Amino acid sequence: MSFIPAVDTTVGYTFGGRAPIARVLPGEPVRLRTLDCFAGNVRSVEDLPSRVCTMPYLNPVTGPLYVLGARPGDTLAVHLVSLTPVGGVGFSSTFPHFGALTGTRSTAMLHPPLTERVWEYTIDHRRATVRYAARGSSYHTDLPLVPMLGTIGVAPAAGEVRASIVPGDHGGNLDSPLMRAGTTLYLPVNVPGALLALGDGHARQGDGELCGVAVEVPMDVTLVVDVLTGVPTLSPRMETDAAVMSVGIARPLEDAYRMAHADLVQHVTALTGLDILDAYQLVSQAGRAHVGNVVDAEYTIVAAVGKRLLRDSQPYEGTHQRLRAVAATISTLPPAEAVV
Amino acid sequence: MSFIPAVDTTVGYTFGGRAPIARVLPGEPVRLRTLDCFAGNVRSVEDLPSRVCTMPYLNPVTGPLYVLGARPGDTLAVHLVSLTPVGGVGFSSTFPHFGALTGTRSTAMLHPPLTERVWEYTIDHRRATVRYAARGSSYHTDLPLVPMLGTIGVAPAAGEVRASIVPGDHGGNLDSPLMRAGTTLYLPVNVPGALLALGDGHARQGDGELCGVAVEVPMDVTLVVDVLTGVPTLSPRMETDAAVMSVGIARPLEDAYRMAHADLVQHVTALTGLDILDAYQLVSQAGRAHVGNVVDAEYTIVAAVGKRLLRDSQPYEGTHQRLRAVAATISTLPPAEAVV
Amino acid sequence: MSFIPAVDTTVGYTFGGRAPIARVLPGEPVRLRTLDCFAGNVRSVEDLPSRVCTMPYLNPVTGPLYVLGARPGDTLAVHLVSLTPVGGVGFSSTFPHFGALTGTRSTAMLHPPLTERVWEYTIDHRRATVRYAARGSSYHTDLPLVPMLGTIGVAPAAGEVRASIVPGDHGGNLDSPLMRAGTTLYLPVNVPGALLALGDGHARQGDGELCGVAVEVPMDVTLVVDVLTGVPTLSPRMETDAAVMSVGIARPLEDAYRMAHADLVQHVTALTGLDILDAYQLVSQAGRAHVGNVVDAEYTIVAAVGKRLLRDSQPYEGTHQRLRAVAATISTLPPAEAVV
Amino acid sequence: MSFIPAVDTTVGYTFGGRAPIARVLPGEPVRLRTLDCFAGNVRSVEDLPSRVCTMPYLNPVTGPLYVLGARPGDTLAVHLVSLTPVGGVGFSSTFPHFGALTGTRSTAMLHPPLTERVWEYTIDHRRATVRYAARGSSYHTDLPLVPMLGTIGVAPAAGEVRASIVPGDHGGNLDSPLMRAGTTLYLPVNVPGALLALGDGHARQGDGELCGVAVEVPMDVTLVVDVLTGVPTLSPRMETDAAVMSVGIARPLEDAYRMAHADLVQHVTALTGLDILDAYQLVSQAGRAHVGNVVDAEYTIVAAVGKRLLRDSQPYEGTHQRLRAVAATISTLPPAEAVV
Repeated sequence: MSFIPAVDTTVGYTFGGRAPIARVLPGEPVRLRTLDCFAGNVRSVEDLPSRVCTMPYLNPVTGPLYVLGARPGDTLAVHLVSLTPVGGVGFSSTFPHFGALTGTRSTAMLHPPLTERVWEYTIDHRRATVRYAARGSSYHTDLPLVPMLGTIGVAPAAGEVRASIVPGDHGGNLDSPLMRAGTTLYLPVNVPGALLALGDGHARQGDGELCGVAVEVPMDVTLVVDVLTGVPTLSPRMETDAAVMSVGIARPLEDAYRMAHADLVQHVTALTGLDILDAYQLVSQAGRAHVGNVVDAEYTIVAAVGKRLLRDSQPYEGTHQRLRAVAATISTLPPAEAVV
Repeated sequence: MSFIPAVDTTVGYTFGGRAPIARVLPGEPVRLRTLDCFAGNVRSVEDLPSRVCTMPYLNPVTGPLYVLGARPGDTLAVHLVSLTPVGGVGFSSTFPHFGALTGTRSTAMLHPPLTERVWEYTIDHRRATVRYAARGSSYHTDLPLVPMLGTIGVAPAAGEVRASIVPGDHGGNLDSPLMRAGTTLYLPVNVPGALLALGDGHARQGDGELCGVAVEVPMDVTLVVDVLTGVPTLSPRMETDAAVMSVGIARPLEDAYRMAHADLVQHVTALTGLDILDAYQLVSQAGRAHVGNVVDAEYTIVAAVGKRLLRDSQPYEGTHQRLRAVAATISTLPPAEAVV
Repeated sequence: MSFIPAVDTTVGYTFGGRAPIARVLPGEPVRLRTLDCFAGNVRSVEDLPSRVCTMPYLNPVTGPLYVLGARPGDTLAVHLVSLTPVGGVGFSSTFPHFGALTGTRSTAMLHPPLTERVWEYTIDHRRATVRYAARGSSYHTDLPLVPMLGTIGVAPAAGEVRASIVPGDHGGNLDSPLMRAGTTLYLPVNVPGALLALGDGHARQGDGELCGVAVEVPMDVTLVVDVLTGVPTLSPRMETDAAVMSVGIARPLEDAYRMAHADLVQHVTALTGLDILDAYQLVSQAGRAHVGNVVDAEYTIVAAVGKRLLRDSQPYEGTHQRLRAVAATISTLPPAEAVV
Repeated sequence: MSFIPAVDTTVGYTFGGRAPIARVLPGEPVRLRTLDCFAGNVRSVEDLPSRVCTMPYLNPVTGPLYVLGARPGDTLAVHLVSLTPVGGVGFSSTFPHFGALTGTRSTAMLHPPLTERVWEYTIDHRRATVRYAARGSSYHTDLPLVPMLGTIGVAPAAGEVRASIVPGDHGGNLDSPLMRAGTTLYLPVNVPGALLALGDGHARQGDGELCGVAVEVPMDVTLVVDVLTGVPTLSPRMETDAAVMSVGIARPLEDAYRMAHADLVQHVTALTGLDILDAYQLVSQAGRAHVGNVVDAEYTIVAAVGKRLLRDSQPYEGTHQRLRAVAATISTLPPAEAVV
């Protein structure tokens, strides 16, 4: 298993529109590194992103990887085996006219921007914590380290090329805290080879990514992919040992909720043989709604339902279990994911 | 401790506009019963709500209770000591032009309504489960029993009277799964005595109350109240042993998210002495967003942050702990609430 | 025809919850005066509303008027015969945390409020203009005088009482620039006598009432009402000589658009005999969408279609024409309304 | 002045990602033809779009045109000299899961799709009407012919390639009824030559494009462009003889309203020297909000203010007037645009 570094020749700022940097085989683990969303340009609390970063060079993704055998109309399964923040610090910040509690380009206000400020987090790998330290006082507190990937996706459909900061049916900047080790992501294949790319590692993130920026870190990623030939997927789905999930990607936020849940109801119908109203009812009482981001070009909500309610039916023909088995051969398997 | 039954003279369909049915003292536990949202009119899967219920007689609330000493400008704290579904069944249903995945009065569509259908759930109190049984097949599955109150509130401000099915700054039909035993709710006092009323018990509910109807049950409720004199609260807040929370009540759903989180940031600022940007950052990484309903006249999201991150500061001067202590004298205390 | 002044005994701050101040007969013109939204407390640019006004005493409405013969389930038709601003000045202002381009209670932001500022407009009745004068410079310009009523409604359904600053199915603070002389408004009757009240005169208003405050004036109003017995109306509709209209009242703004247009499609179906898809198509190509407010508790959009496209069918059995005929006997009829 | 036909080599389905088909000089008129949104595949009411069209080959645009001298950071001005529907018929349709009054991909519902149906409109060029003919009855009526372009834009920023059916800061599928002869559109230049493309002609359209499809026609277009060197434009603006306008492109619809009006307030500030609050106030009373589409990937609202209120200041250094003068030399100038 070779290792793909994050260097000029392996990172980019779009999904689609770029030539593959490597070929990967279904079932064969891949190790790679991703840069943080600032492309490494924020190195201290003095480095204001609007000064040290250059638009549109934000949110670099490593890739794209050409998945052998993936053809338009297939589904690409990506299992995250492990996510390890690189180094001992992460950064967060406010950013002018970006975030949920400030006027933005589209939620346009006449207020001047909030003050731009950077926070540095110390990562304690052994204790699995990140330390928040206030800027305006000596207050500090430790939060659990919960590594996740903000951005992972494939080349979009219809010949589109999307900036890596945008989420969509192709995945992209979903910014869901559930995109962590132990999760399998299902994406549509729109072009030969799918052209998978990923980045934007977070040491952790609150629900909704309130201020628009998580605890941003470079990340070492191990993943393994599979291709479901002739099985279409319209928009991202996720799976853990405990749950099947559908991702809604839309504005306003209730449309993200609707899209996620309508897809989940359809999925439950297919998995259980329930009619559509019975599945609607089951998800109404058993469904969990996980807020991803409320700050990006599209908001995300992940709708989840526990698999034990689905009588152990095997979504995508047991792909998740198969990829977990591969993962087990190369890593201490992360603890069974209990999130529903 | 006497018991207030749910009968014609003790239930109503509005917050405000009704005379109190009883007086309660801060610190003295109250026991009462609430009807289900159908006012008991749905008794089998043959009883379609649109036929057996009469608008606007939906969502009856028991009360109002006159809280001695509560005056406009104060805060009313309501601690839920225990919630026990009455009897062995609960009902849910679809309802024409109501729910998140159907056209409604405001998200108006040209589609004919979805089919109206009723589901009956069997409650197993000993195993703490409710049994879902499909209508179109023999499929069934057991879900955890997690009793909660959909509706709890006080008389609104500005002389308004609101239907009990509507959520607002006065509380009302918040439909949050976190409104369960062990939770303290803080509400503004708008009129002398606050005029607390509650109802709409759910044996459980998925996030967002997807189809618009939870597992609806009559409920026996034990609660204890307190009054924070001269302490204003603008919109509902909640507290458990583990977390402080703010409720956002708005459409679109991102505004519910914004309102909840802006209030939580302000609350964290007051509790910690952090400046506003530092509190914004802390909540951005540590905050949880719990989707309440995405179906009512206003949507709800509850923003939460763990209290141990706030250095054991005491929101509302330790009111929650004091009410928990009262609760401990009269009930087997529910297990410490772990939800963050 | 007597005259109802705007004094303490004739104005209030709610729809519902108040005893009628007068009885009116269908077909008999009524003259009354309304206060401005500040209740007359803003008298110069030095009078900041947040200082001189007292919440919730904003947006007074004159009434309620008991309409003889109106019973629940009927429709109340209100024809505005004439609207005349009282006196020679109007006021507008910004208001902390209110307006479309500022953080508000629900679109909550962390920004400090925009500066509160008052503008005084000089009304030239003869030239039919209002003069805008900048506060920060000597810039001034004349805008057409187009008097309208921001607020007009009846007692709500379901025993509710709503603040006069809130729009809803009962009418209320719709803030539509089309509510002017020559317009007939149709409202549901929810209680005996309907209990009509009105106020919030504007000398003019931009689409959406951008900053939340129009050119606010006291207004002399002449109106005439009619009752359509046994004809239900679910939410406000409007009619002019040129157009039939439906009012959508909702958040987010697309739901106001949807609600208005779905009702208009249904209305066109009833008036023309077209099937629902044919009516949908006709409105798709011929419909006009007039933005009312994007600042109040609910936003409003008025959907309109020209009556000549409807083959001179008579909405509400010719009520508008009948009321126009009454109006002609008591006033110089306003020029035929050309708005579509 | 040569003519660019709409043939396989001159049309495409994206903004960006394609090589220019022609070079154009600022100030030199261009004539070209655009296909209708169905790429000509709908030829009778029997041709259901979902059957005769192939995704993503919808909404072809003619171009891109390389504008000599246009460089990133400049503004491209495009003046529409004339729009002439080609031939005597136009088509409209419903389309499964597309439109404002139906469940869609993002406003996801469980309803089956509305019936797909096609309408054929007869165009009477002499009388300047299009004839609506119902499908379910013999009802028909004539509507004014008001030719407009649904789609016009340039290559997006940040290396993106967007489908031609998507609106954005680069223009694209704005679907505004104000994009007609006599209008000048201002767009950002993101790549050398700007790469202008256009299509999606409408014989007319209601506000919001309710059912998602206008009266679709091939169109002969005459236009003339200019480049404002070193003058940046962030998102589309428009100008007519009567008004300056800003386009808001966002979901939810209130964000389109906010974005359009915030930009207009900024523009008015720049044109008049008013401070920001004074400009906010002026637009609040004088602004018009024109609903473009409420059906596309982003909704559009155009905010407008009359130029005579701005003391004849010259937006973009008189570009509109200069282009109107060029237009006058080659066409019967369309009547001065009175829309505010």
